[in-house]
Amino acid sequence: MNELLERIVADCAPSASLGHVATYIPELANVDPNKLGIYVSSEDGKQYFAGDHLEPFTMQSVVKPLILLQALMDSGEDAVRTLVGVEATGKPFDAFNYSDQALNSANINPMINTGAIALCTLIHGETYEEKFSRLLDLARKLSDNPELNVDHAVYVSEKKTGNKNRALGYMLTAYGMITDPVEEILDCYFRACSISVNCRDLARIAHIFANHGIHPETQEQMFPAAYAKYVNATLATCGMYDGSGEFALTVGFPAKSGVGGGIMGVIPHRMGIGVFAPALDKHGNSVAGVQALAKLSQILDLSIY
Amino acid sequence: MNELLERIVADCAPSASLGHVATYIPELANVDPNKLGIYVSSEDGKQYFAGDHLEPFTMQSVVKPLILLQALMDSGEDAVRTLVGVEATGKPFDAFNYSDQALNSANINPMINTGAIALCTLIHGETYEEKFSRLLDLARKLSDNPELNVDHAVYVSEKKTGNKNRALGYMLTAYGMITDPVEEILDCYFRACSISVNCRDLARIAHIFANHGIHPETQEQMFPAAYAKYVNATLATCGMYDGSGEFALTVGFPAKSGVGGGIMGVIPHRMGIGVFAPALDKHGNSVAGVQALAKLSQILDLSIY
Amino acid sequence: MNELLERIVADCAPSASLGHVATYIPELANVDPNKLGIYVSSEDGKQYFAGDHLEPFTMQSVVKPLILLQALMDSGEDAVRTLVGVEATGKPFDAFNYSDQALNSANINPMINTGAIALCTLIHGETYEEKFSRLLDLARKLSDNPELNVDHAVYVSEKKTGNKNRALGYMLTAYGMITDPVEEILDCYFRACSISVNCRDLARIAHIFANHGIHPETQEQMFPAAYAKYVNATLATCGMYDGSGEFALTVGFPAKSGVGGGIMGVIPHRMGIGVFAPALDKHGNSVAGVQALAKLSQILDLSIY
Amino acid sequence: MNELLERIVADCAPSASLGHVATYIPELANVDPNKLGIYVSSEDGKQYFAGDHLEPFTMQSVVKPLILLQALMDSGEDAVRTLVGVEATGKPFDAFNYSDQALNSANINPMINTGAIALCTLIHGETYEEKFSRLLDLARKLSDNPELNVDHAVYVSEKKTGNKNRALGYMLTAYGMITDPVEEILDCYFRACSISVNCRDLARIAHIFANHGIHPETQEQMFPAAYAKYVNATLATCGMYDGSGEFALTVGFPAKSGVGGGIMGVIPHRMGIGVFAPALDKHGNSVAGVQALAKLSQILDLSIY
Repeated sequence: MNELLERIVADCAPSASLGHVATYIPELANVDPNKLGIYVSSEDGKQYFAGDHLEPFTMQSVVKPLILLQALMDSGEDAVRTLVGVEATGKPFDAFNYSDQALNSANINPMINTGAIALCTLIHGETYEEKFSRLLDLARKLSDNPELNVDHAVYVSEKKTGNKNRALGYMLTAYGMITDPVEEILDCYFRACSISVNCRDLARIAHIFANHGIHPETQEQMFPAAYAKYVNATLATCGMYDGSGEFALTVGFPAKSGVGGGIMGVIPHRMGIGVFAPALDKHGNSVAGVQALAKLSQILDLSIY
Repeated sequence: MNELLERIVADCAPSASLGHVATYIPELANVDPNKLGIYVSSEDGKQYFAGDHLEPFTMQSVVKPLILLQALMDSGEDAVRTLVGVEATGKPFDAFNYSDQALNSANINPMINTGAIALCTLIHGETYEEKFSRLLDLARKLSDNPELNVDHAVYVSEKKTGNKNRALGYMLTAYGMITDPVEEILDCYFRACSISVNCRDLARIAHIFANHGIHPETQEQMFPAAYAKYVNATLATCGMYDGSGEFALTVGFPAKSGVGGGIMGVIPHRMGIGVFAPALDKHGNSVAGVQALAKLSQILDLSIY
Repeated sequence: MNELLERIVADCAPSASLGHVATYIPELANVDPNKLGIYVSSEDGKQYFAGDHLEPFTMQSVVKPLILLQALMDSGEDAVRTLVGVEATGKPFDAFNYSDQALNSANINPMINTGAIALCTLIHGETYEEKFSRLLDLARKLSDNPELNVDHAVYVSEKKTGNKNRALGYMLTAYGMITDPVEEILDCYFRACSISVNCRDLARIAHIFANHGIHPETQEQMFPAAYAKYVNATLATCGMYDGSGEFALTVGFPAKSGVGGGIMGVIPHRMGIGVFAPALDKHGNSVAGVQALAKLSQILDLSIY
Repeated sequence: MNELLERIVADCAPSASLGHVATYIPELANVDPNKLGIYVSSEDGKQYFAGDHLEPFTMQSVVKPLILLQALMDSGEDAVRTLVGVEATGKPFDAFNYSDQALNSANINPMINTGAIALCTLIHGETYEEKFSRLLDLARKLSDNPELNVDHAVYVSEKKTGNKNRALGYMLTAYGMITDPVEEILDCYFRACSISVNCRDLARIAHIFANHGIHPETQEQMFPAAYAKYVNATLATCGMYDGSGEFALTVGFPAKSGVGGGIMGVIPHRMGIGVFAPALDKHGNSVAGVQALAKLSQILDLSIY
């Protein structure tokens, strides 16, 4: 299996040249576009890996399923559903073009920025610092990595340049969907996006979603199975931005990508996968990462369809 | 199992009152809104059913996966992908609002009318009558029902009132995506939508998609496994109109609905399901049908996520 | 004055190289892009002209004010307003992107294709041939040119390639805004667009609109003054496609352009102007024609603002 | 003439019941919806008025032509045109639905919030307090009213609830169209909207635009004639929100409305008019105010078309 992963890394690394690293957050532009790592946390308890699987990168949108999960755990499904819907939007993840009639929960999903920002308000905590702490704790627990922390330089860069997110935040405020101060909510959101992880961390987190909330070693139920299915279903339809349909065809399992270059793949009942390759396609998905997952899916027959 | 289905039918039939039968095709408005039937074609070769499972209804959009499959079989995946993309649009199935910059394959999928009309041109045949014959033959073979035929009254009604589809057809023509005469293509499409089936027919067809192309009794490979996964993945992300995300959460498997009230459910490796209940929700999906599938999914743990 | 016009023609003709002749109607692609003609029908009864003012070209969208006028004369303002609104759309003249909630009269104006096609149904006549005859008669009377007729080659070309207009026609039908057969309405519309005129014809027609319906020589009231103001106001806000605001700034009077390269300018109480130069800008307006009108407006202080 | 105005006030006041006062800025909800005032500053130097012409109200969007004028005077036409276009958008004044491809100057005009906010950056001044001072000075000079000042309660209310404008501001920032701090720009904008005026003030300002920049009594050229035409043309096509086409038909001259209930009407070469009646129609235009202007226009033949 490690050999298979090595071969896939060797085969897919060159395709990085077809993409570009994200530049809209200046700090993200500084990464080496040719990195490629992969890590599999498997049903048999075994861990497999190849390439730059220990290279750190920031979660960016990969944190969105965790925001959704924490909101579900803290406020319940009804509150989440009232605020944020579940349909794919057919638009980029940071799109503005809500018509005036249509900014409501039905047109937002938890995997676009608008939805993830809104869901931060449903996490418990007196302050947004507390809310973020809960989220970081969740990431640490699910990844079995108590060292997880914010990449401060990325966080600062993100906060400085995140004006599209500010616009989305004030739009949510204008429509009465959120009431807390926008800058505080965004501070929590920017920190969350800036959590530094590696492929192993993503694979471990994904594995628990694949296991419907049960820790693969301790067998502890970390969160309700229903929430795992909620998150997994949402990833299947909306997880790969407006490339989710394409990903369902070519790879075929729930996954979430981030503009940091990471992808977290969830194969229900079987395994969790983390990949990292920072050059992105036009939708914001890792080029070499998607290709590596496609190969792995084909060889191991991982498609759920 | 039949007992379980009977109970589900009894529990879900009343919810028909929350929906309305389709009226935009006058013939469809004449059905009894309180019908509810369900049929399961199962992995063990057994067939289960309850309620109005023998009641005939027209396929309507449920025929779209068959159009996609026939186009794949006749012209191959590349031709299909060049014409029609795979992303959910975030819009109703008969939406017009393509911006002038954006009418291209990337913004069309095979489960919206625009995409299904375009795909008719990729079915082999000298004439559109021949193309339709191939499609009808496919439906007959997959359902093991050589009696399948067009409901002539619905077809005539559809042809007479299908002006939105005419508009979509001429739009495709205007953008150079189709070149055959619009009325001929639409005639094929209207006939396809008017194929009369019952729950058993849908369950049998679905079962072969679930079996990745292999006939459950004869074990014959009716079409390539890759095409089954292509169709199933597309159903998972786009099959239930702009209610596909909701359906993934509450039911959790690939499915296709039609405004005739039918739903075809595909549970990979396990079973095919056909339900029929003509009162529809605002997305065009059968209210009682979705509810019945949700109950069945929960009880039998059918979600793939 | 003729000298002034000669100078303007000489100055503006070279700017034709900044535009392109329309190609979507094949016949229109055959014209010489370097023609430039201008004709002024003035308040003092005098007629001035320069350049290719006798060159024939088809009216195309310049016929829209005549369709609006005939609809007003035949069916009255209330009927017109019920069918077609008066607001600029912010979109190209042949845009499709009506949201499903919003295809109604409020989102259509008489100067976009959708509106002009709809208004053809309000012209009196047993058949669409009769309706078109009334329209042609109106054009002949207002231009004092009984020889005006359809350019048959352009009409045939237009009918053959007019699939976007077919799409718009079926969309109007689908929303119940028109009920007559689409092909018949479009036949009338295509003929109207194909009426062959020259700069003099446009200037004469424009002069009567400028005179609020009164023939400048005979003093006959050809149509109610209120309808002239209706048309002129509509031209001022919507007459130059989605370049109407720009035209108001740089030229400053009601005008209507067509993709044949003609522009009809109306200076209330003062004069009518016809220009022709077939190379178009991105909005579909004659490049050299707009420039010539801008110069003339500045020199003669023709802006109404 | 005063008698005529009295009659119009008496006739039109009851139509206030067809509208509603603006409520999205809480302070605006407190006004008496039945007020109606009108003031005419005429070509003969005479001043006419009737009804509540001395009632104070805040300018709101009526200040937009002054922002445009000050930006033109301070930074020139090229800078203004680079930042903000001139086409009607076909959308409400505070619409968000810019597609991601299309947030650029071509899709913004100076009479929608996005455009007016952007233009504040082109006013000279070290600070936004200084920029606002220049704007207030301009309003005072053009109205011959050195007492003009901000209604502090409205300004505070506006600043507190203006989240849609914050969203628009951050969107402009995200697309690189503005670079100054959003809150500072908005502070200037909110102050400008909160300038308290009466019908006389608006009529006086309008009169100078009608006179192409020349003060009607002193004959001083307050600003270039070209800028007056620029503003007047923009008002004619975009001044009455997405009711500008309707206003051109029924009234027929350049005008600017505000959600405070004021309308400033410019009749080139003839007069300036100010009206006030706070109950608004669905576009945000004063119901009784528009009706009063329509009557006056008809009786005095004020339409420029």
